[in-house]
Amino acid sequence: MTDGEGRRPGDFQLQREEKPLTACPFCPGEERRTPPELFALRPDGSRPNTPGWQVRVTPNKLPTFGLESGEEQRAEGLYDVRHGVGAHEVVIESPSHNLHPAAFGSSGWSAIFQAWRARLLDLRRDFRFRSIMVFKNHGLEAGALIQHSHSQIMAVPVMPPRLAIELAASREHFLRKERCLHCDLLAQERKGEGVVSSAAFLCYAPFAARHPFEMRIAPLRHGHDFAAISDPECRQLGTALSDLLQRMRRVLRDPPFNLLLVTAPPSHPPPGKPDQWASLSHDFHWYLEIVPRLQRQAGFDQATGFFLNPVAPATAARTLRECQADA
Amino acid sequence: MTDGEGRRPGDFQLQREEKPLTACPFCPGEERRTPPELFALRPDGSRPNTPGWQVRVTPNKLPTFGLESGEEQRAEGLYDVRHGVGAHEVVIESPSHNLHPAAFGSSGWSAIFQAWRARLLDLRRDFRFRSIMVFKNHGLEAGALIQHSHSQIMAVPVMPPRLAIELAASREHFLRKERCLHCDLLAQERKGEGVVSSAAFLCYAPFAARHPFEMRIAPLRHGHDFAAISDPECRQLGTALSDLLQRMRRVLRDPPFNLLLVTAPPSHPPPGKPDQWASLSHDFHWYLEIVPRLQRQAGFDQATGFFLNPVAPATAARTLRECQADA
Repeated sequence: MTDGEGRRPGDFQLQREEKPLTACPFCPGEERRTPPELFALRPDGSRPNTPGWQVRVTPNKLPTFGLESGEEQRAEGLYDVRHGVGAHEVVIESPSHNLHPAAFGSSGWSAIFQAWRARLLDLRRDFRFRSIMVFKNHGLEAGALIQHSHSQIMAVPVMPPRLAIELAASREHFLRKERCLHCDLLAQERKGEGVVSSAAFLCYAPFAARHPFEMRIAPLRHGHDFAAISDPECRQLGTALSDLLQRMRRVLRDPPFNLLLVTAPPSHPPPGKPDQWASLSHDFHWYLEIVPRLQRQAGFDQATGFFLNPVAPATAARTLRECQADA
Repeated sequence: MTDGEGRRPGDFQLQREEKPLTACPFCPGEERRTPPELFALRPDGSRPNTPGWQVRVTPNKLPTFGLESGEEQRAEGLYDVRHGVGAHEVVIESPSHNLHPAAFGSSGWSAIFQAWRARLLDLRRDFRFRSIMVFKNHGLEAGALIQHSHSQIMAVPVMPPRLAIELAASREHFLRKERCLHCDLLAQERKGEGVVSSAAFLCYAPFAARHPFEMRIAPLRHGHDFAAISDPECRQLGTALSDLLQRMRRVLRDPPFNLLLVTAPPSHPPPGKPDQWASLSHDFHWYLEIVPRLQRQAGFDQATGFFLNPVAPATAARTLRECQADA
């Protein structure tokens, strides 16, 4: 959290336009304007921080968190204060400035998933991080302030409330049933008709979706850890996500959207305790969540923590299923 | 939750403009286009559902919930389903179509608070309702789809997660300290400089605010129940809120905003148990929350449940305090 010093009142307004097209620091040839790259897929074998990459990951130039921890936690009257520590990285998803994520295709998304996997595996070597989030904001209303398509990775030393709740619910089910909660839910969702399903992945509108046209893509074969994904699975997942994004782009007329990866935290199962915790790798199941931003968060949601979703998930799934995707 | 039947794909898009100005059902002379009024302040003694009102409350024509309960809770595989039951009302805050809430003045807001109070007292007579929320969306980005200034009241038979968490934290503090948590926090906040403070209310940027320029207005004298507010207190609260909205409008250039009333639920303390629960009226403290929408909810918030606030609350408070309000 920065303290806003040195800013003028006008700096606090709502940004109503994406930053202009000129001089994009994410475009090929502009590599020196980002911090040195942490990972890149360079099919032509070019040198780091030069053009030729397909996907490129760099530290965020204006990170939300710093890697140095500074002062410890302290009290301020009745409150607690701690320094924001974490990693914040940017995945530049394509060399093309204007390419829409629905047009990346299976191979484009496959490369992005490989970059996510590489960064997850590297970041979990830092034992301070209790969770690593991967997410993408597309379009201004979904929080994207830069047009060039990118996703973000954040690693933080705390367990986010949402993940803690999901892990606890999954664990409770597993301890009672000795089965993965998500595997059970996927079996139920498969009886309905997913939007598209392949041998490896199911794309479906979750029951009690919080947002209109909220969708999930989950592996049918159990897996708690996205970072264990294989290259062929990356391609199959890319096919499923491309198909969904093309349908959403057509039916919802290029909606702003958020894409999240929800996967088990680095410590799950805890390192060094493989035997004791082996079963626990069966109590979580990773998935992608795709949420088009079709309505704004309003007072009721804020006041309650409830979500009002005017579109039944079955209607959303049928609407997307019945539309023709691009070729 | 409606099921979206009969809608076309185009109906699902993000609404990018407020509904047009013509033929506003909230304007004087259009009273027949709303359901019959539940409450109105009519200083000139005019008849119900005719012009002459200052504030007018009607059932929402397109309610989120119905008052009839229909089917009971049932299982659908691993899931639970229950019918949406609740009251959903609209408070038309002014006869003037274009008047900005920052220009309502102390008397305008005082009338609105009297309407809220009257509806809270009436709705809590329905013992099904475990919570009653009052909120206002101003501007399209804050979820207002109709321009004519209005707030909304929703009463539901469930305890919202946010309120449950706040009540539990307040109760825990009270049981440990025998003091109201909010009274303790207000004593600490008063040592900083509130934006504006009067004998009765403090307007301040809460510590660890989740959103930039998030503000609260709370009564300095303890009170768990907004509906116990007196007419003179309504006027003083109107003065405090008007002053804040004028400053926000100026500094943040008419931002979209949400305004929430957070007050103890109808059953607090439970009816019929006044002695046993008397002390518990001291374990909650009502307040108004005002949140300008200066940034969009993005992937990180969704993935984690954390909030990233780039403006330190002290900076927000100082910025608003140092600006000159309207006359």
